[in-house]
Amino acid sequence: MQLLNSKSRVLASRQQAAAKAVRVAPTGRRSAVRVSAAVHLDFNTKVFQKEHAKFGPSEEYIVRGGRDKYPLLKEAFKGIKKISVIGWGSQAPAQAQNLRDSIAEAGMDIKVAIGLRPDSPSWAEAEACGFSKKDGTLGEVFEQISSSDFVILLISDAAQAKLYPRILAAMKPGATLGLSHGFLLGVMRNDGVDFRKDINVVLVAPKGMGPSVRRLYEQGKSVNGAGINCSFAIQQDATGQAADIAIGWAIGVGAPFAFPTTLESEYKSDIYGERCVLLGAVHGIVEALFRRYTRQGMSDEEAFKQSVESITGPISRTISTKGMPAVYNSFSDADKKIFEQAYSASYKPALDICFEIYEDVASGNEIKSVVQAVQRFDRFPMGKIDQTYMWKVGQKVRAERDESKIPVNPFTAGVYVAVMMATVEVLREKGHPFSEICNESIIEAVDSLNPYMHARGVAFMVDNCSYTARLGSRKWAPRFDYIIEQQAFADIDAGKQADKEVMAEFLAHPVHSALATCSSMRPSVDISVGGENSSVGVGAGAARTEFRSTAAKV
Amino acid sequence: MQLLNSKSRVLASRQQAAAKAVRVAPTGRRSAVRVSAAVHLDFNTKVFQKEHAKFGPSEEYIVRGGRDKYPLLKEAFKGIKKISVIGWGSQAPAQAQNLRDSIAEAGMDIKVAIGLRPDSPSWAEAEACGFSKKDGTLGEVFEQISSSDFVILLISDAAQAKLYPRILAAMKPGATLGLSHGFLLGVMRNDGVDFRKDINVVLVAPKGMGPSVRRLYEQGKSVNGAGINCSFAIQQDATGQAADIAIGWAIGVGAPFAFPTTLESEYKSDIYGERCVLLGAVHGIVEALFRRYTRQGMSDEEAFKQSVESITGPISRTISTKGMPAVYNSFSDADKKIFEQAYSASYKPALDICFEIYEDVASGNEIKSVVQAVQRFDRFPMGKIDQTYMWKVGQKVRAERDESKIPVNPFTAGVYVAVMMATVEVLREKGHPFSEICNESIIEAVDSLNPYMHARGVAFMVDNCSYTARLGSRKWAPRFDYIIEQQAFADIDAGKQADKEVMAEFLAHPVHSALATCSSMRPSVDISVGGENSSVGVGAGAARTEFRSTAAKV
Repeated sequence: MQLLNSKSRVLASRQQAAAKAVRVAPTGRRSAVRVSAAVHLDFNTKVFQKEHAKFGPSEEYIVRGGRDKYPLLKEAFKGIKKISVIGWGSQAPAQAQNLRDSIAEAGMDIKVAIGLRPDSPSWAEAEACGFSKKDGTLGEVFEQISSSDFVILLISDAAQAKLYPRILAAMKPGATLGLSHGFLLGVMRNDGVDFRKDINVVLVAPKGMGPSVRRLYEQGKSVNGAGINCSFAIQQDATGQAADIAIGWAIGVGAPFAFPTTLESEYKSDIYGERCVLLGAVHGIVEALFRRYTRQGMSDEEAFKQSVESITGPISRTISTKGMPAVYNSFSDADKKIFEQAYSASYKPALDICFEIYEDVASGNEIKSVVQAVQRFDRFPMGKIDQTYMWKVGQKVRAERDESKIPVNPFTAGVYVAVMMATVEVLREKGHPFSEICNESIIEAVDSLNPYMHARGVAFMVDNCSYTARLGSRKWAPRFDYIIEQQAFADIDAGKQADKEVMAEFLAHPVHSALATCSSMRPSVDISVGGENSSVGVGAGAARTEFRSTAAKV
Repeated sequence: MQLLNSKSRVLASRQQAAAKAVRVAPTGRRSAVRVSAAVHLDFNTKVFQKEHAKFGPSEEYIVRGGRDKYPLLKEAFKGIKKISVIGWGSQAPAQAQNLRDSIAEAGMDIKVAIGLRPDSPSWAEAEACGFSKKDGTLGEVFEQISSSDFVILLISDAAQAKLYPRILAAMKPGATLGLSHGFLLGVMRNDGVDFRKDINVVLVAPKGMGPSVRRLYEQGKSVNGAGINCSFAIQQDATGQAADIAIGWAIGVGAPFAFPTTLESEYKSDIYGERCVLLGAVHGIVEALFRRYTRQGMSDEEAFKQSVESITGPISRTISTKGMPAVYNSFSDADKKIFEQAYSASYKPALDICFEIYEDVASGNEIKSVVQAVQRFDRFPMGKIDQTYMWKVGQKVRAERDESKIPVNPFTAGVYVAVMMATVEVLREKGHPFSEICNESIIEAVDSLNPYMHARGVAFMVDNCSYTARLGSRKWAPRFDYIIEQQAFADIDAGKQADKEVMAEFLAHPVHSALATCSSMRPSVDISVGGENSSVGVGAGAARTEFRSTAAKV
C-alpha cells in the first residue's frame, strides 16, 4: 500500500525476510524461478480495527467485518452521497443490493445506483430489484459515473479494457474508483498507461461469484458474520480516505473478514487460480480420470462417480472443513498407498503447468490473449463445453444421485490434491500472502465453485464465471488433461512408486496451518445451493449466461 | 524487401489490390479480422533469374535453383571467404554439409566452418563430418563469428534469444547474418531493439527439417532439382549484395525453387503452422478421433489405423500428389456424405483455434511464452508425449503394418482436411503469399513431417523439431482435441448435417490451384524415409533429441 508507518515498515521487512526464507523450494530441487518480495500488507484505516493474524509462517493484518460494523460505514463513507455500481453481470446485482441493504441498516441516506448501457438487456431486471430511473438509482453508465462519488465498476473485463479511457475521464476529481478485479491494471500496464492521479483507486474482491455473494448475505441476514469474505486493496489514495472506503465496501457487501492485497497481486492470483485448480485444472483432470477409469473397465456412470462426483462432493467437503491432509488421513493403509502414488506422480507435472500459467499471467500474455479473444467473439462466440459424452453421463449420474453413496476415490483424491497443492505452491514461491493463497486456490474451490459444480454440473460452473475465467478454463483444462495423462499416468502405469519426499513435503506444507487460520474466519453460515431445477444462481444476482454474449459492449 | 524498383512497385500495388479483393472472407460471413496488406515479394538480384509464377489468384516472383546453378555461387558469394554455420542441431549439419558440397562442386575455395560452444557435445560428430579444428573449419562460436563474412546462425531459438546481443556485436562490419527462422526478429521486437545497420540480415528457410534437407540433397546428388525448397528474405541490405547472398545460400543447400518472403511473414507463418496442421492440430485431432472410434466399438488397433495411419499414410500421399479435393473425390457417394459432415462440423471450430494461434503469434505472446518456458527447462524439462496408451497401440500397429491395407477413412479425412483448410484460410486472410501458405500448411505437412510420423511415430516427429515447435505442439494439440470433440463431434452426434456452403467454399478455394503450381515445383526426387530401425533421421544431419536439452546453452 501507499501509506506505511514505521511499525508497518518493520512488518514489511519481516515479511521480506520470510519471503527470502522460502527461496529454497520445498521440493528441495534447484529452482530457476525468482521469488518476489512479500506483498506489502499494511493499510491505514482511521475507522476500522486492524487485527493481527498468523497464517502459517507469516503474519498479516486483517479486518473483521460483520453486521455489527455497519454503523461504522457512516464514517468510512463520509462525503459520499452517491455510489454507482456499473454493470449487471455476476457481481453487480449482488454487490449493489447488499450495499443498499447494509447502508439502509446503518440508517444512512447514500444513494446506491446502477449504471447500464442504453441497449443493455438488464434494465427490467434492475428495476425488478428496486432500482429506478425515476429516483436516479438507474441510469446510463456515463451519467451515473459523472454524478457519483464512488464508482464500482463491475462490467466485464473485456468491456473495462475497451472503455476505461472514457470511464476514467468521466469521473469527478476526488471520487473513488472501485474494482472487484485487478484485471484493468494488467490491461493498462500492457497499454503503458496509469490511473489519473486525482482519484482514489481501490479494490474489493469477494471470494465467491456474484450469486454466492448475494445468497449468503440473504441467508444470513440475521446472523452476524454471514457473507462472503473479501480481499481489498488500495492502489491509489488521493484523498486519504481510500482504505476506509475500501474496507467499508468489503464490510458493506457482507464480508465477515477482509484481507489486504494489492491490485497486482489480486489479478495475478485470481487469473492464475481460475486457470488452475478452481476451473481449468479440475476440468482437465476429471476428463483424464474419466477416460482412465472407463479404459480400466468401469462403467461410464461409475467412472463419473469415481472422478467428478468424488471431487465435487466428499473430497471438497473434507478439504473445506478439515483441510487437505484430512483427505489423505481418512484412507485405509491400502488406499493411502494409492493416494501417495497418484499424488507423487501428478504433483510435478501439475506444478509445471501452474508455473507456465503464472508466468503467462504475470507477463501480460494471458490478459492480451483474453482481449484478443473477446474481439473475435462476433465471429467465434464461445461454444458449450458440456455436450460431450462424459458430461451427458454426468447429467444422468446427478439425476440419480444418492449423496451418501458417493465414493471417495483415493486415486482421484491423490491427483486432485496434487493439483491443488501445485496451485498453492506456485503462489507461495511467487511471494503471495497466505490469506490470498488459501482463498484463491483452496477456499474458493471447495466452498464456492465446487458446490455449484456438484449441484449443477461443470458447464454451469464455468458459464457462470467471467469471460476471463471461461476463456482461461477452455485454454488450460486440456493442458492439465494431457500432461497428467502423458506424465503422471504414464509413470504410474510404468510402475513408478510414491515419492516419500514429495509426500513428506505435502504433509508438512505451511499452507495447512494457514488454511486452518482461514477456516477460523469462515462465514457463520454455510451457503446452500439448490439442485438442477433450483432457482438459486439464476435471476437477479446471478450470472445470466444468455446476456453475457453482449456484455462486452458494457 | 528494401529495394523496390519501379516495375516492382507496380507489382506490389497489384498485390495490395489482390489482398483487398480477398477482404470478404470466403465463408461469406462477417469477419472481425483485418486483412493485412500483401507481403512485398520483389527482390533485387544481379546474379539469378527471377521468374513469374501464378499461385492461385496471385502472382509472385520466384527463383529456380538446381545443381546447374552452382556456378553462379561464385558471383553471388563474391567477397565471402568464410561462411560459419553456428550450432549443430537439426538444420546446421545438413546446411553446412550441403553448402560445402555445392561450393566444392562450383570449384570455389570458400571455407565452410562450424561454430560450437566449448562444452557442446557435438564436437566429435562435427569432426566425423569432416570439419576440423586444424584447418579452422571447426571452432568456438564467437571466434567463428568474428572471423566470418557470412554467419549462418542455426542455434536454437532459445539460444538466439539469449545470445543475440553478443552475436551481433561480434560480427564484422559488412558481414551477412543468415537466419533460417524469423523467430529472432520476434524476440527483438518484444525487446524493442533492431539489428545493427552495418550488416546484411537475410533468411533462408528450408521447407523441411534438417534430416530431410541433407537426405534429399544426398539422394539426388546426380539429379538436377533434387533438394528441399526454401523461402528466402532480405531483412536488411547493407552492401547491396544481400539478395544474391540469400538466393545463393538457398540454391547452395539444394533448393530446386526459392520463394521470397519477409522475416516477419516467415516467423508468423512458421510458428503458426507448426502449432496448427503441421504438428499441434494433427496430434490433437488424432487423439480425439482415436477416442471416438474406440468408444464407438472399434478395437484399439483398428481405431489407430482409421485415425493416425489413415492420415499419415494414404491421405497425406493423395494430398501430396493430387491435392485436397482429390481426397474427397476419391470417395463413394456414401463416403462423400461422411466426409462432408465431418468437414462441415470441424472447419469452424478449427478456424477458431487457428485464429487464436495466429494472433498469439503475431502479438508476440507465443514467442514470449517460448522464451519463458525455456528458462524453466532446468526445473521442468519437456516430458515425452508417446507413453500414453494410444501411442503404445501405435507402436504395435506400425510393427505389423501392411501399407496396402491402410484404410482411407472418410470421417478422419473430413476432420483432417478441415483442419488443414482452416490453417490455410487464416494465413490467407492475414495476407500471406500463396507460395508461403502452401508450403507452411500443406507441403511441409504431407511431404516432410507426415512421412516421418508415418514411419517412426508421432513422438519422433515432434521430438525432431525445434523447442519452439515442440512447445507449441504441446500447447495447442490439446486445444484442437477439446474443441473438435466439444463442438464438431457434439454437432455430428446431435445429427447436424453437412453445410453445402462450407463444402462449396472448400472445393472452390484458390489454394488448390496455388498448390498445383507449387506441385509443379516439387523436387525431382521424392524423399525416402526408413522405418523404425532405420538410421535415417539419426546421426549427422539429424536432430539428436538427447542433445537438445542442453541446446539452449548454444
